[in-house]
Amino acid sequence: MSYDGGYNPYGQGYSAPPGAYPPQNSQVSPDAQQWFNMVDRDRSGKINCEELQAALANGKGQSFSETACKLMISMFDNDASGTIDIYEFEKLFNYINQWLTVFKTYDRDGSGHIDENELQQALTQMGFRFSPEFINFLIKKSDPQGQKEVSVDQFIVLCVQIQRFTEAFRIRDTQQNGTITIGFEDFLTVAIGSSI
Amino acid sequence: MSYDGGYNPYGQGYSAPPGAYPPQNSQVSPDAQQWFNMVDRDRSGKINCEELQAALANGKGQSFSETACKLMISMFDNDASGTIDIYEFEKLFNYINQWLTVFKTYDRDGSGHIDENELQQALTQMGFRFSPEFINFLIKKSDPQGQKEVSVDQFIVLCVQIQRFTEAFRIRDTQQNGTITIGFEDFLTVAIGSSI
Repeated sequence: MSYDGGYNPYGQGYSAPPGAYPPQNSQVSPDAQQWFNMVDRDRSGKINCEELQAALANGKGQSFSETACKLMISMFDNDASGTIDIYEFEKLFNYINQWLTVFKTYDRDGSGHIDENELQQALTQMGFRFSPEFINFLIKKSDPQGQKEVSVDQFIVLCVQIQRFTEAFRIRDTQQNGTITIGFEDFLTVAIGSSI
Repeated sequence: MSYDGGYNPYGQGYSAPPGAYPPQNSQVSPDAQQWFNMVDRDRSGKINCEELQAALANGKGQSFSETACKLMISMFDNDASGTIDIYEFEKLFNYINQWLTVFKTYDRDGSGHIDENELQQALTQMGFRFSPEFINFLIKKSDPQGQKEVSVDQFIVLCVQIQRFTEAFRIRDTQQNGTITIGFEDFLTVAIGSSI
């Protein structure tokens, strides 16, 4: 990938956790099947945002936010039905587990939250070089009530946002110098299209 | 305002509906007070996202989305508590009523939804000159299930997104030619900071 050569303003760059996109497979793992059956409360064979939300707790014992659940469903909902079937679910299941593993690596005290330092370490590990001001901005954006902590669902939302906007930026950064020139409608398309 | 002179790539531009930001006033109107009492189910003197969601129905008889309610609360929640008091609520109440008036102007058949043509007319009326492709993109983004209609809560979310990103763009468009040059971290700050 040509982007990896020479000066890279984004560091090594972000990529989805390994295993997030396994090859299509008609065999569903027993773990995923069991979890699917638990989450699919109405036995419709499909999982929607509400069912996912009811099944996922963040570190504080609260449900994952609607924002996080909608985002995760939309990432694997190939037919844009607002629901996912067992095959789409298995990919989501792997994806969530990968994020939980990343998150737990940095949540060393097991509090279910990571603080500013831990978030900086996580993003650095993902290959980003962000200024302390930007990390502080991310914390404030995730946690407007000022507790300076990011829960696992907020962490997933942040990482997916950063991933999407970074990809949109890279495509346009033809000089690979970390700046782009962009028109109004294209800017709106990227900003609104990649927002959650 | 210098931006209005000469070529303006955004058209006349968007501004908040008149009355959205009334001057601070310790007198609350009886209408707003009555509505506040109805919405504040737990009589805490504060309204949170769930209470607002329970009180607002879109045209289909569904509740407003969590996204729309969180957005509206955050716009008037000066102390970032996640709740609004009666004074903040009155501003929100006026704001919602202004949007309902705009929406109803374009929802001529009273269906509770506007279609692609009606959305284009509404945005043109707000002073934007968008391409048909961009309008189509907005519809798809608002309604991924492909019904090609935008409900009132989706309309509010769209307009606030457009407003925020347009403001962020304008600040950086020092040449006023409809293009900006922007660095990676600044781009992420705008994109994530103005997203909902």
